[in-house]
Amino acid sequence: MIEVKDAIKLIEENVSVSDIKKTELNRCLNYVLADDIKSPIHLPPFRQSAMDGYAIKISDSKVYKVVGESKTGHPAPIQINEDEAVRIFTGAQVPDTADTVVIQEHVEVNDNKITIHKLPEKKANIRKVGEQIKKNEVALLKGHVINEASIGFLAGMGIDGVKIYKKPRVCIITTGDELIEPGKKLKPGKIYESNSIMLKVALKRLKITKVGIFKVKDTLEKTKDVIKKCLKKYDVLLISGGISVGDYDYVKEAMEVNNIHEIFYKVNQKPGKPLYFGKKKNQVVFALPGNPASSLTCFYIYVLPALRKMMGYSNIHLTKKKVKAPEEIPNNTGKSLFLKASAGNNKIKILEGQSSSILKSFAHSNALLYISSENKIVRKGEIVEYFDLNF
Amino acid sequence: MIEVKDAIKLIEENVSVSDIKKTELNRCLNYVLADDIKSPIHLPPFRQSAMDGYAIKISDSKVYKVVGESKTGHPAPIQINEDEAVRIFTGAQVPDTADTVVIQEHVEVNDNKITIHKLPEKKANIRKVGEQIKKNEVALLKGHVINEASIGFLAGMGIDGVKIYKKPRVCIITTGDELIEPGKKLKPGKIYESNSIMLKVALKRLKITKVGIFKVKDTLEKTKDVIKKCLKKYDVLLISGGISVGDYDYVKEAMEVNNIHEIFYKVNQKPGKPLYFGKKKNQVVFALPGNPASSLTCFYIYVLPALRKMMGYSNIHLTKKKVKAPEEIPNNTGKSLFLKASAGNNKIKILEGQSSSILKSFAHSNALLYISSENKIVRKGEIVEYFDLNF
Repeated sequence: MIEVKDAIKLIEENVSVSDIKKTELNRCLNYVLADDIKSPIHLPPFRQSAMDGYAIKISDSKVYKVVGESKTGHPAPIQINEDEAVRIFTGAQVPDTADTVVIQEHVEVNDNKITIHKLPEKKANIRKVGEQIKKNEVALLKGHVINEASIGFLAGMGIDGVKIYKKPRVCIITTGDELIEPGKKLKPGKIYESNSIMLKVALKRLKITKVGIFKVKDTLEKTKDVIKKCLKKYDVLLISGGISVGDYDYVKEAMEVNNIHEIFYKVNQKPGKPLYFGKKKNQVVFALPGNPASSLTCFYIYVLPALRKMMGYSNIHLTKKKVKAPEEIPNNTGKSLFLKASAGNNKIKILEGQSSSILKSFAHSNALLYISSENKIVRKGEIVEYFDLNF
Repeated sequence: MIEVKDAIKLIEENVSVSDIKKTELNRCLNYVLADDIKSPIHLPPFRQSAMDGYAIKISDSKVYKVVGESKTGHPAPIQINEDEAVRIFTGAQVPDTADTVVIQEHVEVNDNKITIHKLPEKKANIRKVGEQIKKNEVALLKGHVINEASIGFLAGMGIDGVKIYKKPRVCIITTGDELIEPGKKLKPGKIYESNSIMLKVALKRLKITKVGIFKVKDTLEKTKDVIKKCLKKYDVLLISGGISVGDYDYVKEAMEVNNIHEIFYKVNQKPGKPLYFGKKKNQVVFALPGNPASSLTCFYIYVLPALRKMMGYSNIHLTKKKVKAPEEIPNNTGKSLFLKASAGNNKIKILEGQSSSILKSFAHSNALLYISSENKIVRKGEIVEYFDLNF
């Protein structure tokens, strides 16, 4: 049995970053850039008017003759002399010989002449070539997590695809003779299976949507077979249940037979003690406790960072935040605790129903309060840490 | 022209909640429950062992005869007398006549007899019927945002679908002759179109994935037609560009012709002044500024809450957080400012490149610092508010 911090460290050390793949821009949200991006163009690519108004070659004169129009989206090959102006719109090209744009609110128009009430400074209202970014300048660095603005920024440089880290292929294997699918009728001794769908949606939040789900009976042979099959197709195996010490738990043996190398088994924590983490080359295997709340806790604390590391994230863990303990929290278990809690406005509330089989409190929580195994008692008001589940 | 806070209020008042639809559980992540959910069963549905061990009828005796086995997933019709025990596993049914489970670590086995080293208290290690939730008890309330744990909780009650608020159908209309699709060759006077893909991925983050995209030339006729067409199919129209006062801006007229009722036009803010919000019965129309950073700011502050209100969220706005101003911030614009910033660990950094055409700084920001129009200067260290872009 190892401590929480050691388990976390072993995962960080043993998981490798995924392969790289070039991907269409509109499929890149929340992915991580696998390459520095340099701008292929100057942005803006030409001198652009920042306002609706008139482009002029500035002088002391207040009266200019309008000799043409520069529309947004069209080239402006017009040449102007002093005392001449060109009607221009936001985003349109400023004629080469013009040096200033005067905004329309400062102009009176009579026939083909304009009179300027308020002369701007020279070069006003013109966006310079490359003002936003110059050709070949680095726009975004490798490791950048792509958000909406990045997508807009990349598209604005004319880039329609980038190299990102692939997401791992994940399968969920649920074990247990007692499990019945939701929607069907419950039979004596059975319970509804909830872990696979819960883990599936947790993966969905990480943008991992193609997930294999396999149900297996509690026998060594069947468990061995399904693991063998999954190792052929998936990068990550999540095995739900069947890992505690009961006589009917074949999972551990089935993993050994399949040459999965155990990195750790059992963590000194509550909930989630019987957590297993193993490896076969770059493939990783987690066996999660069958109890739903334990399973989900282990997912957030151990599986999520492993998956994020694979996807190229540099911040792989849930954000840890500090808060004052709302009450005295005794910890006479000798284990590290993850308590389901509701956090907000620099406060935290520990929810009722911390038992590892209970999901109701988890459904209402947005935080896991962490108490280390060495900490025998937390006094009210003492600073404690929690993991923020809003990711 | 109206103030930011009035614009926000008008959106809150004028947007209605969407219709309700029954949906499969695995498609419900991040949706909002449209109905209270009562448990159709007791959970657990039978008395369940919480550990691997032996079920007994407790007495002063330390020696019990093993008369049977209760496997997880199978009914346990076994009756026991005093001095008898049943081998049992985690999650398995406790025989009716047993009252206590002793864990296997406290037991020595000899042939078909067990000797208990450490007698547990009566009723120990048994999960009571309905301990997690009782039949007909309210499990989750209307308005609850469905997370992974909720999905697991609902599945555990055997529920395979729930009523949620529908997501609105959204279309993006981009106007502008100057726009070229990313990936194609840039021509004189043209720029790459980035708003539609940026807005599309912003919608994707809100789980709105079926989005219509329409490009329209800068003419009144074409703009009128596309709006008419979109009003037949979509709940929300996002029109990008063409809303400022330039001669080539037909959008406003095209909306009037289509009987869209203007709620407001122009907000006293920077960036994003020429924002338009209108309505036709329950359909809403936003015309967003063409500048990418302005467009995205307006999306976060105005469009996002409208969409979230439609989807049944009670917290519709981005989370507002307080932080100390990292520097003196003068505001001599007379406008409310939204400054692109990077926030974390109770600190905030205002990024360079605040111009409305610049997305580079936005790509690196996770916060919009808000300075109200009335606030002429913020002193260093003064408390300011920002909108958290991690949603």
